[in-house]
Amino acid sequence: MSIEHSANPATAAGSTDASPQIAIVIPAGGGGTRLWPRSRQATPKQFLDLVSQRSMLQETVDRVEALTSPDRVYVITNAKHVGPVRKQLPEIPHANIVGEPQGRDSAPAIGLMAALLERTIGPDAIMIVLPADHVILKPGQFQEVLRSAAAVAQDGYLVTVGIEPIGPDTGFGYIQRGEAVEGHTGAIPGYTVKQFREKPKLEVAEGYLAEGGYYWNAGMFIVRVGVLRDLYRAHVPDMEESFATIVDAILAGDDQTVANVFPALRKISFDYAVAENADRVAVVPADIDWSDVGDWSRLAEVLAHTQGEDGNVVVGHHVGVDTTGSLIYSPKRLIATIGMEDLIVIDTPDAILICPKSRSQDVKQVVDALRERGEHHLL
Amino acid sequence: MSIEHSANPATAAGSTDASPQIAIVIPAGGGGTRLWPRSRQATPKQFLDLVSQRSMLQETVDRVEALTSPDRVYVITNAKHVGPVRKQLPEIPHANIVGEPQGRDSAPAIGLMAALLERTIGPDAIMIVLPADHVILKPGQFQEVLRSAAAVAQDGYLVTVGIEPIGPDTGFGYIQRGEAVEGHTGAIPGYTVKQFREKPKLEVAEGYLAEGGYYWNAGMFIVRVGVLRDLYRAHVPDMEESFATIVDAILAGDDQTVANVFPALRKISFDYAVAENADRVAVVPADIDWSDVGDWSRLAEVLAHTQGEDGNVVVGHHVGVDTTGSLIYSPKRLIATIGMEDLIVIDTPDAILICPKSRSQDVKQVVDALRERGEHHLL
Repeated sequence: MSIEHSANPATAAGSTDASPQIAIVIPAGGGGTRLWPRSRQATPKQFLDLVSQRSMLQETVDRVEALTSPDRVYVITNAKHVGPVRKQLPEIPHANIVGEPQGRDSAPAIGLMAALLERTIGPDAIMIVLPADHVILKPGQFQEVLRSAAAVAQDGYLVTVGIEPIGPDTGFGYIQRGEAVEGHTGAIPGYTVKQFREKPKLEVAEGYLAEGGYYWNAGMFIVRVGVLRDLYRAHVPDMEESFATIVDAILAGDDQTVANVFPALRKISFDYAVAENADRVAVVPADIDWSDVGDWSRLAEVLAHTQGEDGNVVVGHHVGVDTTGSLIYSPKRLIATIGMEDLIVIDTPDAILICPKSRSQDVKQVVDALRERGEHHLL
Repeated sequence: MSIEHSANPATAAGSTDASPQIAIVIPAGGGGTRLWPRSRQATPKQFLDLVSQRSMLQETVDRVEALTSPDRVYVITNAKHVGPVRKQLPEIPHANIVGEPQGRDSAPAIGLMAALLERTIGPDAIMIVLPADHVILKPGQFQEVLRSAAAVAQDGYLVTVGIEPIGPDTGFGYIQRGEAVEGHTGAIPGYTVKQFREKPKLEVAEGYLAEGGYYWNAGMFIVRVGVLRDLYRAHVPDMEESFATIVDAILAGDDQTVANVFPALRKISFDYAVAENADRVAVVPADIDWSDVGDWSRLAEVLAHTQGEDGNVVVGHHVGVDTTGSLIYSPKRLIATIGMEDLIVIDTPDAILICPKSRSQDVKQVVDALRERGEHHLL
């Protein structure tokens, strides 16, 4: 398909100054259970202080504060989490925090925010979409990636961030790069995207790594608001009327209309509805020590630099006898372990998880069991 | 050596009626750490409700209530635990609860109680000494054992209870039986003791079981007060003066004199100082489903009848995914386990123990580590 919205090199974003024309959009609607018992329905992963004293959402905002001002940071989250987001991000205007009355996957949420930005800042603004629940241990390098991506986005590209893979992980989608994108002002080169690949089987992932030129898709992207709006008009035209109505309602503070209209939006992912249909898609490689902290064993990896000689990562209070390679989280109580290897122990006021690292993907089974038993207070 | 105190068959105790001439003496001085984190310095094992809603001390008293009246039940415990004992056993006269200002092992404690009983009830009373922290799952059978033992004791024997061994356990001393004791009125036969054996090596214990006629020494014994007093006079004469002074002080309510004199008693075990030197020692075999609950894996055995199909013993709240053969104690919080086998999890308000059953003997190492770190509030 053709991209009708032309590039506008006059608003280059490759400078190191914070630019008012950059808007950060943070989808924070996740309600994942893979970090149970810390993540709960009331406090999903993005609200937790897993890696530092700040929550993952706060760290997401902290990482980009040099790129724009707080009144250009937007969050779209579950309506019941608007209060917690306001509390965690007091510097962000309340009007920038949009509550979804019902999760409809990523395409409606991102499209709505693009429509809101088009109306309030205009089509030339650069929109940077950043998930609220990732860890990035090289924030300076990450800023360089975003600045370079913004420069590529100025040329009309939908720009993704490609994480340099450190292994043949089957838990992520992959991005295959094509030719270099010429002529932009960013410090890091961008490439056209040859293809998005779904989460692969292990052999396929190993092939990607052997071949080279593949990146993990971290769900971050950078695009001019007008370019994204054109993509929605072309590929998801059925949402346009609802977007217009909801933006009117948001600007009027009319929560009731938002609540009435939003659930009618088609439930579909951004990648499937928009990204995979776009012609001008680019990727900027990112060597930023990234993690989605998708389960407890990944958190142990993220915190590996804190481990002692025994290879244990301890947050809180632990006595270990013949205990190695374990993740112990217990800020309140003492955890004593004897003769355990590669164990995960997560203590919270009302529930404790104990499992081997190799089973940390199966925490969902515990959550399912609790749901079946009707123990909703523990979910 | 010769036993000078002659038998007195006139006061036979083999009847099924409660007899005022039976006195129960419960040494409750244990401060063991093998059941940490539930057992603590302030609340050792005997004060815990490990098997039922009653504490082990309370169950010890409950088991013998048919044999005598509460005013003939005596407890000797650490002075700092006199309060808890009074609270747990309100039916027992305060004067029957004797506080040791300092632990001096079992010979001084038992000898003092014998001296006290000699003065208050007289030498013909039968003294039954029962540890406060054992489990007996066949209490009716146990009463029969005690009645039969009392009948043998009437003949001037120091009578031990011999637990039928269910395996070549190396954690107990063994009692080798000799000839049957003739002429007593008990329902269960008694035997003379050929020899006491220290905790054996595994091969030795296996030999005992193959040979037969060996019992576990459970530290329980039954003896006429006068017989026991004679044994002390003969084998531990150095304690006599202190015993006399302390009994005077106890009867006068003079705690200060008790506190002053008791620590001067020689620290030595009853088995070593008295039992092994006695000529007329008998054993009554006991098939009573006994356990000393010496560590958490033994408690799991005691509670095995409560386990479900997965072989887990659960006290409290547990969700197990692929979890088998485990002991989960958590009355307050949910414990969720995934992919664990033969695990022990003990949750308390300020500390949680996690270890394989095979390492439950090593809980002491945790306690030692806490002591080294100065974390006395957790001991």
